[in-house]
Amino acid sequence: MRINGRQQNELRPLKITPNVNKYAEGSVYIEVGDTKVLCTASVEERVPHFMKGQGRGWVTAEYSMLPRATQTRNQREAAKGKLGGRTMEIQRLIGRALRSIVDLQALGERTITVDCDVIQADGGTRTTSITGSFVALAMAMDKLAVQHKLARFPITDYLASVSVGIVGDRAVLDLNYEEDSKAKVDMNVVMTGTGEFVELQGTGEDRPFTRKELDQMLELGEQGIQQMIELQKEVLGPIALKITSGQAGAQV
Amino acid sequence: MRINGRQQNELRPLKITPNVNKYAEGSVYIEVGDTKVLCTASVEERVPHFMKGQGRGWVTAEYSMLPRATQTRNQREAAKGKLGGRTMEIQRLIGRALRSIVDLQALGERTITVDCDVIQADGGTRTTSITGSFVALAMAMDKLAVQHKLARFPITDYLASVSVGIVGDRAVLDLNYEEDSKAKVDMNVVMTGTGEFVELQGTGEDRPFTRKELDQMLELGEQGIQQMIELQKEVLGPIALKITSGQAGAQV
Amino acid sequence: MRINGRQQNELRPLKITPNVNKYAEGSVYIEVGDTKVLCTASVEERVPHFMKGQGRGWVTAEYSMLPRATQTRNQREAAKGKLGGRTMEIQRLIGRALRSIVDLQALGERTITVDCDVIQADGGTRTTSITGSFVALAMAMDKLAVQHKLARFPITDYLASVSVGIVGDRAVLDLNYEEDSKAKVDMNVVMTGTGEFVELQGTGEDRPFTRKELDQMLELGEQGIQQMIELQKEVLGPIALKITSGQAGAQV
Amino acid sequence: MRINGRQQNELRPLKITPNVNKYAEGSVYIEVGDTKVLCTASVEERVPHFMKGQGRGWVTAEYSMLPRATQTRNQREAAKGKLGGRTMEIQRLIGRALRSIVDLQALGERTITVDCDVIQADGGTRTTSITGSFVALAMAMDKLAVQHKLARFPITDYLASVSVGIVGDRAVLDLNYEEDSKAKVDMNVVMTGTGEFVELQGTGEDRPFTRKELDQMLELGEQGIQQMIELQKEVLGPIALKITSGQAGAQV
Amino acid sequence: MRINGRQQNELRPLKITPNVNKYAEGSVYIEVGDTKVLCTASVEERVPHFMKGQGRGWVTAEYSMLPRATQTRNQREAAKGKLGGRTMEIQRLIGRALRSIVDLQALGERTITVDCDVIQADGGTRTTSITGSFVALAMAMDKLAVQHKLARFPITDYLASVSVGIVGDRAVLDLNYEEDSKAKVDMNVVMTGTGEFVELQGTGEDRPFTRKELDQMLELGEQGIQQMIELQKEVLGPIALKITSGQAGAQV
Amino acid sequence: MRINGRQQNELRPLKITPNVNKYAEGSVYIEVGDTKVLCTASVEERVPHFMKGQGRGWVTAEYSMLPRATQTRNQREAAKGKLGGRTMEIQRLIGRALRSIVDLQALGERTITVDCDVIQADGGTRTTSITGSFVALAMAMDKLAVQHKLARFPITDYLASVSVGIVGDRAVLDLNYEEDSKAKVDMNVVMTGTGEFVELQGTGEDRPFTRKELDQMLELGEQGIQQMIELQKEVLGPIALKITSGQAGAQV
Repeated sequence: MRINGRQQNELRPLKITPNVNKYAEGSVYIEVGDTKVLCTASVEERVPHFMKGQGRGWVTAEYSMLPRATQTRNQREAAKGKLGGRTMEIQRLIGRALRSIVDLQALGERTITVDCDVIQADGGTRTTSITGSFVALAMAMDKLAVQHKLARFPITDYLASVSVGIVGDRAVLDLNYEEDSKAKVDMNVVMTGTGEFVELQGTGEDRPFTRKELDQMLELGEQGIQQMIELQKEVLGPIALKITSGQAGAQV
Repeated sequence: MRINGRQQNELRPLKITPNVNKYAEGSVYIEVGDTKVLCTASVEERVPHFMKGQGRGWVTAEYSMLPRATQTRNQREAAKGKLGGRTMEIQRLIGRALRSIVDLQALGERTITVDCDVIQADGGTRTTSITGSFVALAMAMDKLAVQHKLARFPITDYLASVSVGIVGDRAVLDLNYEEDSKAKVDMNVVMTGTGEFVELQGTGEDRPFTRKELDQMLELGEQGIQQMIELQKEVLGPIALKITSGQAGAQV
Repeated sequence: MRINGRQQNELRPLKITPNVNKYAEGSVYIEVGDTKVLCTASVEERVPHFMKGQGRGWVTAEYSMLPRATQTRNQREAAKGKLGGRTMEIQRLIGRALRSIVDLQALGERTITVDCDVIQADGGTRTTSITGSFVALAMAMDKLAVQHKLARFPITDYLASVSVGIVGDRAVLDLNYEEDSKAKVDMNVVMTGTGEFVELQGTGEDRPFTRKELDQMLELGEQGIQQMIELQKEVLGPIALKITSGQAGAQV
Repeated sequence: MRINGRQQNELRPLKITPNVNKYAEGSVYIEVGDTKVLCTASVEERVPHFMKGQGRGWVTAEYSMLPRATQTRNQREAAKGKLGGRTMEIQRLIGRALRSIVDLQALGERTITVDCDVIQADGGTRTTSITGSFVALAMAMDKLAVQHKLARFPITDYLASVSVGIVGDRAVLDLNYEEDSKAKVDMNVVMTGTGEFVELQGTGEDRPFTRKELDQMLELGEQGIQQMIELQKEVLGPIALKITSGQAGAQV
Repeated sequence: MRINGRQQNELRPLKITPNVNKYAEGSVYIEVGDTKVLCTASVEERVPHFMKGQGRGWVTAEYSMLPRATQTRNQREAAKGKLGGRTMEIQRLIGRALRSIVDLQALGERTITVDCDVIQADGGTRTTSITGSFVALAMAMDKLAVQHKLARFPITDYLASVSVGIVGDRAVLDLNYEEDSKAKVDMNVVMTGTGEFVELQGTGEDRPFTRKELDQMLELGEQGIQQMIELQKEVLGPIALKITSGQAGAQV
Repeated sequence: MRINGRQQNELRPLKITPNVNKYAEGSVYIEVGDTKVLCTASVEERVPHFMKGQGRGWVTAEYSMLPRATQTRNQREAAKGKLGGRTMEIQRLIGRALRSIVDLQALGERTITVDCDVIQADGGTRTTSITGSFVALAMAMDKLAVQHKLARFPITDYLASVSVGIVGDRAVLDLNYEEDSKAKVDMNVVMTGTGEFVELQGTGEDRPFTRKELDQMLELGEQGIQQMIELQKEVLGPIALKITSGQAGAQV
């Protein structure tokens, strides 16, 4: 039996609360078990220097943990004066994943920055950030669409993410912190609504892993992600209709 | 009439939710109108270098705004690689104010760091941080007391803070962002439960102010702070009994 | 009796030497007892990014202590690679105070930076910096006026600053370092020639303070500042005539 | 046909020159096509703070590109004053991969730092760094073994890495820069001598990828890595005998 | 007798290998005994801010040591987050020396950056960098000349550098690390093909030095530099003909 | 004729005022024409990490220019967040020069830091800093001697420095800013009381220089330095007797 009595292929309780910030163009508060992340999507009518004049937009992400999101307090990166390697790695991952389902041409010369601030961490903060960011991003896109600023809806597919791993020689879905800290293998899976891979990052923390174990983990990941996407659709409501998985965006 | 139809001496709706973080020794989510701050108090069994070997503890604070706490997105200080002057000024103020009502001898050689993370900003984030921090700090102190780690309760008085100002030549209490941005004079008042001043910071933003205006503002500040302290007592419940305003701490 | 045999309401010997730097548009060396600060005002024909195109000028200040201005040597902030919170707080205060008596419209699109470098510190370096900066600033303004670059004189009032405090339960004026380090309450007062407040910053270092103590301190502060302004007028000589307290600037 | 006329499953010319630095405990110059990396392993008789007193060693890696390793000159990270996200991500990956085949207990309380300096870059610098680092690390371990400082040989398996990807809808092995820049999918595979996975990092750069494409890429990666390990064995010569794939280290 | 059995006026074996980098406009690998430096010259079609619009070019240099270029590993400056004083001093010296023999007018509004990366250090890395940089720079200039981008050849003279010193009270040429670390006096000499001084930097490390010792060192330095310039001419081949020592550049 | 009507071998007016800081163990205000530098020597009873436990002391220097020491205002290095290359080069030079005439064994395990803060700059700030630092350092040494903390006086010789150069093809002594900015060659000379060289740094700014020009400059430098040392002796008074040029320190 797993901690909390979960099945091998069972997600933790998942909750996505939209519109939690009165200023942001899109925002959600996502809870996956005790992991809680605030995701806000901010639209700015300019693009980074390296994108100027191409008629295309940009989507990027930033990630941060509040100092007491974890069991012991962590020093703030602002106080240290630099971002740590882990933070940079995670925010690069979130941004890359989001861009994979955005038609930057359709977005036009504007930037959407998704901020993922971890309020409380209990494992899976990067995957939870991706799943929540997608919803905040879609809400911000919808705001632009409603203002008739877009020729077509720039989101081309759903996107969610979950962790899988090998704990005690058994593949399990959605590890919490306690499971993660004793996992032999840890893998983050990011997939689209059409069931294809956007990112795969697997690490043999304690020992290498076999091809068979990889297959088991990928299967669990796929199941978990499809459940997450179901909830995303529900939260997005009418906005969901504008997303046609794996195709050019709908007219807006 | 003021924005939102408030009276000159009327606070915005005030709400303090305790125990919002499962790891922190003390935590509250404080809402003053649309200003929302998460305050967590973290206990560490060591003191800064300059305090070592004196048998006394230390209380300090850190302050940060999430990037989209405000109308337009602000760049993270962690990304800029340094804390801004405003942030430093605020966190020095919060720490100083908290220490004024703590008996560091009674705390013993440990540090309590109170983190104030502004989730949404609508004016008065520094005063709201102080009012919320006090409750989180008292909760963390109580946790130490319950563990029999303290000889006496280290909090010697209540502490709360509010902003006052001159808007359109009239003194008003608890300015929101819109009022603050057109205020002629802006003042932050920090007071104890016994009605004495801990900090006074008044600035003639648009013009200097007279002694009479100062008196009016101080009177409003005092009224607002006493209301805030009433709510703090309610939220703290039995912990409140351990705080004997202006006296040496109760036995624990 | 106070240290040095001063009366409760007695300033330390005050001396302002103008024109101490051959390059700066305005410069003074100000001595308040053993506290010695070099203030230079530099004019640049441009404004910061956030002020561009508004037809208005900018006044800002920087503050620094030489490493051996104090009893023990302090590490340079340039060597540490960042400004400390105290430095930022002080230079923000000086800049804000100076801007309160400057008509930025009259200054036109140029920046005056006042550098306050503490050569020797014996308490009250921030208040001494403000008092000296005012004179250096007025001299730089006069240089612009003489060059017919200004339509009216941009300084609208005098400005000086002094510290007051509670030492041994008695309110005293202009604390030196020894008094400051044992003060129960410490307050910095910035006032105009018309006797109004520009900044008030009071801190209960050792204990909170009552309304009555506040009144006593404000009275001492007002007396000290008016004496300082008398000396400023003397040092400025004919330039003083261009400053009409609390009114629009004189024709130039 | 691929650029350079290579087969889909064909590595670029691979060359590993050992002992290229007269100071380092282990060193190789590895060339994979036009990608050239200098790997040096340095032994220090201490461990990082967080490892002290556990009787275990540490292996870490640093990665850097010379400014003109690439087609256009890049600014040095030392001049920028901070490491970029890409650099941190890569050096974390190299260190993690190396540690996966090291018995840190057997190493004892010492640190081996492997520096990977890219002299010329033509795609696959991170995978080439891992393949070269392994040899430099094994040489440094052997030096310790020869000095009778180790109870058993701390390397538990071989380790090499290669990139695979989808270029023009076809899976290919070992992409050079030109292929990499137009690849639809890019994946880095790190495997052991026993054919198990240590790290898998796949990214849909241009589009997501299917399970079938993943399988094709993994197969190519495995083939390439086994060829690389053959060359590592040849270069290591007698040292290779001390590495018993997937088992506790040999007696030394 | 000297270490390695060299004569007082004998250089270490000197080797310059051109064209070692497939991207750089000019590149050499220079070996002076066991000191090995990679020098690449990169052309960019822009000049620094302070040079804009003057119709003149800029030549600058950067210097860095790989972490294990030395007997014990040095921390990377990129990891420390700043350049050390020694690095800045050296790269300023190299840039200044190179500019002394470049006609910046003839170069036109472009920048050449010469990167000197020390692969292995055994004394004399700054002088070796200058000698190698000259060749890389001349090669880059030739590439511009061949592309008909220059009206005349911008290099006005040869340039090389060597160290001299007093070891055991005797003047010696081209000190290796072991000699350098026990030298009483250390001097770096940079000279042109016409035998004039570009830079002289002498330091009494262990004791001051007399005028007579200075004369002996300068004589040795001159001899060494002329030998180095002979080799530079040989390596440059036909490019050498474009450099007319001490005169305006040849037509190109 | 030179600017200011000086002879080729004529120093600018030189003035050294001792004891200008009430805290520092040694301090002087040195004026060489319009170049004005405050030098303070601070004693600390500890040595840097790399010197611990050797029974020897350390002497180091820091150099900084006030922002308006120059014709146009310079940004503070503390505000930029790092020391520039020029600053580092200069403070390394001053420290090295001072250590050349200090018997670190005689100093014992303590550090003297000499701070050179340029109040006003008109050429020759680094040489002026060295000449002034020597006096401040000797005063601090004397304070230690008087406290019976030293077995022998640690200063082994006098030390002063001056700039020389080629202006308009003529060698001149002690260049001011205007001469310096049009000098063809610029050289800084540091010499001892016994007339030997401690540092020589010559740069062909505009063109290389011949051996004959070098000889002329060295002669001028020697003359200037001997005059400076005469003034140092006068200022030091009885302390001067403790310095026996070029010999082991006198008994104290």
